Amino acid sequence: MRSSNIADPALPLAVALGDPAGVGPEIAAKAWQARREHDLPPFFVVGDMRSIEAVWSGPIARLYDPARAIETFADALPLIQVEDAGAIVPGQPNLPGARCSLDSLEMAVGLTRGGAASGLVTGPVSKAQLYGIGFVHPGQTEFVAERCGVSRDNVVMMLAGPTLRTVPITTHVPLKDVPGLISIDLIVSKARTTERGLVRDFGIAKPRLAIAGFNPHAGENGALGREEIDFILPAIERLREEGIELLGPLAADTMFHPRARAQYDAALCLYHDQALIPLKTLHFDEGVNMTLGLPIVRTSPDHGTAFDIAGQNRADPGATIAAIRLAGQCAEHRARAA
Amino acid sequence: MRSSNIADPALPLAVALGDPAGVGPEIAAKAWQARREHDLPPFFVVGDMRSIEAVWSGPIARLYDPARAIETFADALPLIQVEDAGAIVPGQPNLPGARCSLDSLEMAVGLTRGGAASGLVTGPVSKAQLYGIGFVHPGQTEFVAERCGVSRDNVVMMLAGPTLRTVPITTHVPLKDVPGLISIDLIVSKARTTERGLVRDFGIAKPRLAIAGFNPHAGENGALGREEIDFILPAIERLREEGIELLGPLAADTMFHPRARAQYDAALCLYHDQALIPLKTLHFDEGVNMTLGLPIVRTSPDHGTAFDIAGQNRADPGATIAAIRLAGQCAEHRARAA
Repeated sequence: MRSSNIADPALPLAVALGDPAGVGPEIAAKAWQARREHDLPPFFVVGDMRSIEAVWSGPIARLYDPARAIETFADALPLIQVEDAGAIVPGQPNLPGARCSLDSLEMAVGLTRGGAASGLVTGPVSKAQLYGIGFVHPGQTEFVAERCGVSRDNVVMMLAGPTLRTVPITTHVPLKDVPGLISIDLIVSKARTTERGLVRDFGIAKPRLAIAGFNPHAGENGALGREEIDFILPAIERLREEGIELLGPLAADTMFHPRARAQYDAALCLYHDQALIPLKTLHFDEGVNMTLGLPIVRTSPDHGTAFDIAGQNRADPGATIAAIRLAGQCAEHRARAA
Repeated sequence: MRSSNIADPALPLAVALGDPAGVGPEIAAKAWQARREHDLPPFFVVGDMRSIEAVWSGPIARLYDPARAIETFADALPLIQVEDAGAIVPGQPNLPGARCSLDSLEMAVGLTRGGAASGLVTGPVSKAQLYGIGFVHPGQTEFVAERCGVSRDNVVMMLAGPTLRTVPITTHVPLKDVPGLISIDLIVSKARTTERGLVRDFGIAKPRLAIAGFNPHAGENGALGREEIDFILPAIERLREEGIELLGPLAADTMFHPRARAQYDAALCLYHDQALIPLKTLHFDEGVNMTLGLPIVRTSPDHGTAFDIAGQNRADPGATIAAIRLAGQCAEHRARAA
């Protein structure tokens, strides 16, 4: 019997198109066009066919059975249609489009959870539009976690580029609130999930983690702040007792140059920009956002809907290609370990 | 009549050796050794000759008149001796060594202020040791500012690498204190000094500045924090009224990749790591710390005394070479504009 935690690499990936008026449909189609050049694993997209037709004139194969995506993939972009989105004008989001993006996400999650896809790639959605239709989650990640039956506190957002992986321990909150949100338990929980994710999704037998200090120079023994002493050092101690390999707290400014990066497999950071600045400085066009701690593989390109350039054939599919490739690799690692 | 704000590029630079037990003497000597390879401007060092002899066996020419450094530079490392530091053991700092580092700094500043050197490069000192001899300034920068008759609030620390310059608006303070330190006046003052410095020291006729947001995604119009609305935007407005070209507030994570960096000459950042993470991620071995707003040119390598590797011939002179080269270029720009 297959466990739902095991991804079958003989299955296609599911790619939710995101908002039909954003760049999601264009970059998914462009990724399919580049499938041979980048040796991409087979995937099918989930969304409204007309959102692709509005911006791309290549071949699309509408499927009713995702399993057929594998044979179709060579010749046409396989698509699972959701309820149509109404009139689609690239760059002009509306509420029916938001409903369509949520339908796409929901169906893609369901197909992946149900074993019809080896992993999930989610395209960019508009949170503002989603809130307009009553979406109550902070973002797609929390929605996916709920549909997978995992508490949002037990999943981890990881940003992955070719030479760096970072995990923000706190994410979309005002920076001045971060000192009040950091706790020993939070750091321990995020580090554990990160470690398990590196084993399961990246095939790293004994992951090496690093954790940044919160303050300049990692606080200089308390002279420049106490978060290292009060939270980070006790968390490190607990994690090492569990056998997790963890360097730190490291001065955040000197832990991301090439020699420093060679010392760890993922860097835990205390706040959004501490994780995102080095990742996007180094790997702006190749950054993949992935969720660790889920029963399914889930990745997404690390950018938004870019309504301002939608429909102009200007969107760069690089991050989507990277997200598809990484999802395929993670699915393989899970299958191999099974 | 020469104004003290004009640097004469026909003069040598003054390089203070820093702590005699740190890597300062070694990297200054190695920089001299690499003078032809890197086409370095002539310089003399200021410190205790024995601190160099303890770690390097090349030729040293003890001078009494800094002007003779120019002719000496080709054949030997020109040195101005300060009172000797007592017994010097590389890697073992002590209080006489701290006194020697302060004497070196003081003499090098005095010679530069007095017109005997075209600019000042300061080697790494130990703040802990300096505090032990009654040094009351937070660091060398504030000491140099005072000796130059400039308030420490009117100087700016800039980190300069080959493809990025950043300015931290607040520096060595706990991160949780930063929201209370940010003000419209502080941002305006730092931006003005930065703009003038880019004109005067870098020869940029019309500098383009950028300023980072404090919060993730630059606060998303207040949803993720208010510092952008309360302080950064009003400061930008005032600065633009003065004719200063200033982009922002930019999301800090997406402003340091190559295409983004091409849009500005220097990035103003709200806190230490926001400025230092991108700089050191990109330019770890070539980062120069320079002080803008002084009547003299002042640069320094952006690293510490590295007592742990002192005397082992392992210190990389890259940052010192970069600091000497940049000081020479800035002196030239000042002279040309005079």
